[in-house]
Amino acid sequence: MTDPMILARIALTWLAEPGHRHIHQLVAEHGPEQALEQLMAGEVPDGRLRESVAARLAAGDPRRAAELALKSGERLGARVLTPDGNEWPWQLEDLARLDDLGPDDRMTRPPLLLWLRGARLDLQAPAVAVVGARASSPYGEHIASGLGHGLAERGWTVVSGGAYGIDAAAHRGSLTGGGPTVAVLACGVDRAYPAGHAALFEHIVETGSLISEWPPGSAPYRHRFLTRNRVIAALTRGTVVVEATARSGALATLRRASALGRPSMVVPGPVTAATSRGCHMAARADPQVRLVTDLADVLEEVGQIGVDLAPLPNVPDHPRDRLDVVTATVLDAVPAGHVVRPEEMSASAGVPLRQVLRALPALVELNLVTAHEGGYRVVVGRDGISR
Amino acid sequence: MTDPMILARIALTWLAEPGHRHIHQLVAEHGPEQALEQLMAGEVPDGRLRESVAARLAAGDPRRAAELALKSGERLGARVLTPDGNEWPWQLEDLARLDDLGPDDRMTRPPLLLWLRGARLDLQAPAVAVVGARASSPYGEHIASGLGHGLAERGWTVVSGGAYGIDAAAHRGSLTGGGPTVAVLACGVDRAYPAGHAALFEHIVETGSLISEWPPGSAPYRHRFLTRNRVIAALTRGTVVVEATARSGALATLRRASALGRPSMVVPGPVTAATSRGCHMAARADPQVRLVTDLADVLEEVGQIGVDLAPLPNVPDHPRDRLDVVTATVLDAVPAGHVVRPEEMSASAGVPLRQVLRALPALVELNLVTAHEGGYRVVVGRDGISR
Repeated sequence: MTDPMILARIALTWLAEPGHRHIHQLVAEHGPEQALEQLMAGEVPDGRLRESVAARLAAGDPRRAAELALKSGERLGARVLTPDGNEWPWQLEDLARLDDLGPDDRMTRPPLLLWLRGARLDLQAPAVAVVGARASSPYGEHIASGLGHGLAERGWTVVSGGAYGIDAAAHRGSLTGGGPTVAVLACGVDRAYPAGHAALFEHIVETGSLISEWPPGSAPYRHRFLTRNRVIAALTRGTVVVEATARSGALATLRRASALGRPSMVVPGPVTAATSRGCHMAARADPQVRLVTDLADVLEEVGQIGVDLAPLPNVPDHPRDRLDVVTATVLDAVPAGHVVRPEEMSASAGVPLRQVLRALPALVELNLVTAHEGGYRVVVGRDGISR
Repeated sequence: MTDPMILARIALTWLAEPGHRHIHQLVAEHGPEQALEQLMAGEVPDGRLRESVAARLAAGDPRRAAELALKSGERLGARVLTPDGNEWPWQLEDLARLDDLGPDDRMTRPPLLLWLRGARLDLQAPAVAVVGARASSPYGEHIASGLGHGLAERGWTVVSGGAYGIDAAAHRGSLTGGGPTVAVLACGVDRAYPAGHAALFEHIVETGSLISEWPPGSAPYRHRFLTRNRVIAALTRGTVVVEATARSGALATLRRASALGRPSMVVPGPVTAATSRGCHMAARADPQVRLVTDLADVLEEVGQIGVDLAPLPNVPDHPRDRLDVVTATVLDAVPAGHVVRPEEMSASAGVPLRQVLRALPALVELNLVTAHEGGYRVVVGRDGISR
């Protein structure tokens, strides 16, 4: 006998698309069972929602649909997580403070439940979303799989959307890095969408999980991707968009991360590539969006300071960098082409002769100048540039 | 007979490197002639400057050196601009409020003069700096010459440093765009440095100009590039770094632009390219640094609003974008594979039947769905994606 509260949550998600502000509020105030009663009785203040619910009711009984979905889930080995259970990823509740993102972008409230198919998995563990364009480039796929791999190696869960292109590269990188990866779907966890990812999804299920708000059997309608994206953003400590065209849905995930105050990151690319255009547009449009170029940058944005801090950039060391200003100025005054006397260096560098004479031994020691009869000349490196 | 004030300014720049805070202050308070007297008499509060001046004085007489420089300039057809003259680019005076940028980076004050060799040129006209790495990539050179060309076509002066790589590409782009371009040198305007740019410099002189603070004959010592970079930043309405390695001097120009409150811009590139690394580092380190991807972005950053505003990104138009939310939801509920009845669409989309019936004619009109016996099916584009 299934908990009637769980049945009611499933029925509510069947009856109306998830993320609706009014339904979330009804459930918060009255609990899922009474919320379901009210919806079925047509007691809905929002006119559009009332009509939508009525249309669904014409197609069947929500409680019956919920029971069928549960049976289907059992056959798949899928479980239902709800906010009452201790596996619930509490970070999704941050969506309760996410305002509508536009008149056509209002499905932003926390999920009523999640269907989970896969290994035992801690959805509360630290995770990063790595998402992007379906029509990706080899460059983007290389970066996405590298980030997925590196994050997995450092113990981070990689969350993505299971789509072709960047999403798939991120999941695959995570799998090769030995970490759990989570694909958040816009259809039932029984469906392989896209169909070409059936094998990838089976692979994910072995160590990670497929999750979805929609009951088994649900189709991946286009608007569901937008609704689904808020779960990717809310489930993670930050979202990285690796590649995105100007129209990419990945940018919607980024906006949700940004609106939640989570680090929102884009990987730059060639300005000549349409696949990086959305990344650059997002960075220009929103000062909160941060450029990231590698794993260290991502960890710096999402990590605790001192734990995952990015190392200093690996700037090549140069003997000049070890010189004080006076010695460097003397070095500048030594020509490459011919030998000069210390007095000439003093005049051209504007450095007193005694300081020139003090600097020269250090420059010889570092093999930056060599002593010759009548003076000194600079050592030229193999690249033809004075050292 | 040359104006003794001009001679004094030349002598001062021969006697000490330009940009020095104390010398700028002395000239501001007492005028160039008396400032020169004081320096030659050793009346200098700053110990390091006093020693440097003494070392130069040991090599010759500053007034005599100034006269020789002027003669040399006359032979070249070079002119001297000073803050007293009406050709002086007043925007350089903003450098008076530029603080030292570090203990070894203190030559930040306005120039005492400029040597100019080239066509009659309005240095007060709107200009943009396009600079970057010497060791550039074909990608960076393509972008730099494109920006140079586009800026020139719109009537902007392109300022750069005359170096190999990005600087040269920017100058060349500007020349092909028919605009004046200015190369700010770290040596005398008589010297072709690098030597391989002798022909380019002659080309620049025909329509634009070479300018420098240092008198003819001066060598391009390494530290002079750092001092020179402040002139590039101050002369322009904004600085674009197209490519920069982690150590590139172009980043110093960017920091000066940023410190002056001028738009400081970087062009992103592949994160796998060392030549774009400095650009990405700068954007990550300084929130004032803006990403720019094309001419429109640059004009948006430096232009007056409403005059040079970037056009909206050229997002491909899609028939779906013209649909209202309800119609788009109905479209989502029409499968590609088989024909469905409006009643089925109503149930799966959660849209009342009468709204489905109202939406369908528009969808047929836009060729997004087709009517068949028993219902409708979606039109699939040549890319296999439903439209």
